Amino acid sequence: MDTTSPVSLLLDLIGTFAFALNGALTALRIARLDIVGVVTLGMLTAIGGGMIRDVLLGDLPPATFGDWRYLAVAAGGSIIAFLFGRGLDRVAAPILWLDAAGLSLFAVSGALKSLDFGVGPAQAVILGAVTGVGGGTLRDVLIREVPAVLTSGLYAIPALIGALLVVTAERLGSPGLLAAVAAAILCFTIRMLGVRFGIDAPGPPGTRRGA
Amino acid sequence: MDTTSPVSLLLDLIGTFAFALNGALTALRIARLDIVGVVTLGMLTAIGGGMIRDVLLGDLPPATFGDWRYLAVAAGGSIIAFLFGRGLDRVAAPILWLDAAGLSLFAVSGALKSLDFGVGPAQAVILGAVTGVGGGTLRDVLIREVPAVLTSGLYAIPALIGALLVVTAERLGSPGLLAAVAAAILCFTIRMLGVRFGIDAPGPPGTRRGA
Amino acid sequence: MDTTSPVSLLLDLIGTFAFALNGALTALRIARLDIVGVVTLGMLTAIGGGMIRDVLLGDLPPATFGDWRYLAVAAGGSIIAFLFGRGLDRVAAPILWLDAAGLSLFAVSGALKSLDFGVGPAQAVILGAVTGVGGGTLRDVLIREVPAVLTSGLYAIPALIGALLVVTAERLGSPGLLAAVAAAILCFTIRMLGVRFGIDAPGPPGTRRGA
Repeated sequence: MDTTSPVSLLLDLIGTFAFALNGALTALRIARLDIVGVVTLGMLTAIGGGMIRDVLLGDLPPATFGDWRYLAVAAGGSIIAFLFGRGLDRVAAPILWLDAAGLSLFAVSGALKSLDFGVGPAQAVILGAVTGVGGGTLRDVLIREVPAVLTSGLYAIPALIGALLVVTAERLGSPGLLAAVAAAILCFTIRMLGVRFGIDAPGPPGTRRGA
Repeated sequence: MDTTSPVSLLLDLIGTFAFALNGALTALRIARLDIVGVVTLGMLTAIGGGMIRDVLLGDLPPATFGDWRYLAVAAGGSIIAFLFGRGLDRVAAPILWLDAAGLSLFAVSGALKSLDFGVGPAQAVILGAVTGVGGGTLRDVLIREVPAVLTSGLYAIPALIGALLVVTAERLGSPGLLAAVAAAILCFTIRMLGVRFGIDAPGPPGTRRGA
Repeated sequence: MDTTSPVSLLLDLIGTFAFALNGALTALRIARLDIVGVVTLGMLTAIGGGMIRDVLLGDLPPATFGDWRYLAVAAGGSIIAFLFGRGLDRVAAPILWLDAAGLSLFAVSGALKSLDFGVGPAQAVILGAVTGVGGGTLRDVLIREVPAVLTSGLYAIPALIGALLVVTAERLGSPGLLAAVAAAILCFTIRMLGVRFGIDAPGPPGTRRGA
């Protein structure tokens, strides 16, 4: 079944590349893995979010497996990071940028694909956010980090906002590509502002959270 | 496809609420997360078990996504726990009670739904137990605890017993609601007795396990 | 839908038994669990890889649940390990052999089943490897180890080679059982050579990895 819109596909592939670089660089930096570990973690980060989305939508086998372009882009990004990522001792900044890019693109493309499959708007927003945070969550579980979606206040929220914006635009009949790019840019901007200024979502009433 | 019985739905929603409170309180107590982390962990604990069951049954998208009531109950329970759970330094007791309640209700409703989907009785019992322990297992993996299903002797067993009872009753044609409630109460009682008296399942032959 | 070939089924059941023993022995050795924990971890290790494969193929409920033989073999292997695995303080060697056997058999049977379901050859090779490494990865995540697929250089590679060999043979029309057994033996041999001689895949360019 190929009901995926071209916009969704394009955003998906760029997001796949960004997450593949991110996952592979994370593997190099935190876990010091060999090429198999680096490529495995890169590919899983890259295609994990979309795989979870497709499983939940019942679009099986996932687009990742029906479409060689996802696998090629995910493998290519991981290998590039493996070859050229060495010595980047301060690679934290690009890792955060790439993660934010993948998050934004997947939140938007995931929400669009979910609408294509006929789920309701609330479900499409949530599935968009799940697509955005899914790959990074699998990455963090495998290398035994607490997932960013739990600890970083402005991580799920920008993904939800980006998905909400594109779902609203789709409902109002606005042109697909423009709304999608605007939603992704908005999500990316909020995420990076959160990173830059260390903004967190509110803690429980009456508590003060330390840095 | 909506073959879910009303009994199964009702038990599911109450179990969803209990697990949402439990997951959110766990997030407050153990991981000291902000509102996004608390609600994410609460919702995942609440709907994770049913999602795994529905994926394995091939009922996709999962009922959670086709039916807004699950999402509303899961989000509501998580937000209530976030707002009112503060300062509960000894919140361990309610966390255990809520976990046992969710476990019992999901084991029964999961087994009933699995029968509705035409799997065999042994499979229905196992899928019931998986529904019961699934959300808590996802919760524990994300916050890096070893899941209770592995370490706590009387955790999977009461779920299996509750599911077995309701599957047997269904096969014998006894009235649905009565058998379901009895099975859930039995499961809950065994679980809480295990907690109260520190009962564990037997260790390997010839060993003595410490407390 | 039962399009599974007899060869695939036979290899699957032997691999299920090997992984059940492996998972249960791991539970005894590393985590010192009781019988429920041992059997749960043994069964999940045994059927986890095939479950992930079947979810991704859309063959739901997974063969594990439609076919009681998988459950019986997985439970039997786990219980045998629980009863007779005690005192094996140097049980590391059989754990590694059983893991390599399960890896090899599942990589081959997973690739064959994927071809039966009509995915392309590259996808079948990857799904074969996923089947091989999936159960052990779930096992490692639950007991909080970094999965072998990330850290052990010659773990995913032999699985990919075994799957590639059997997919190639199938495309060339060679007899199924012979090719399958040869591919499994090749995968097993490469894996055990890697274990024996501590061979790792290459690290990033310009680095030297310690032992």
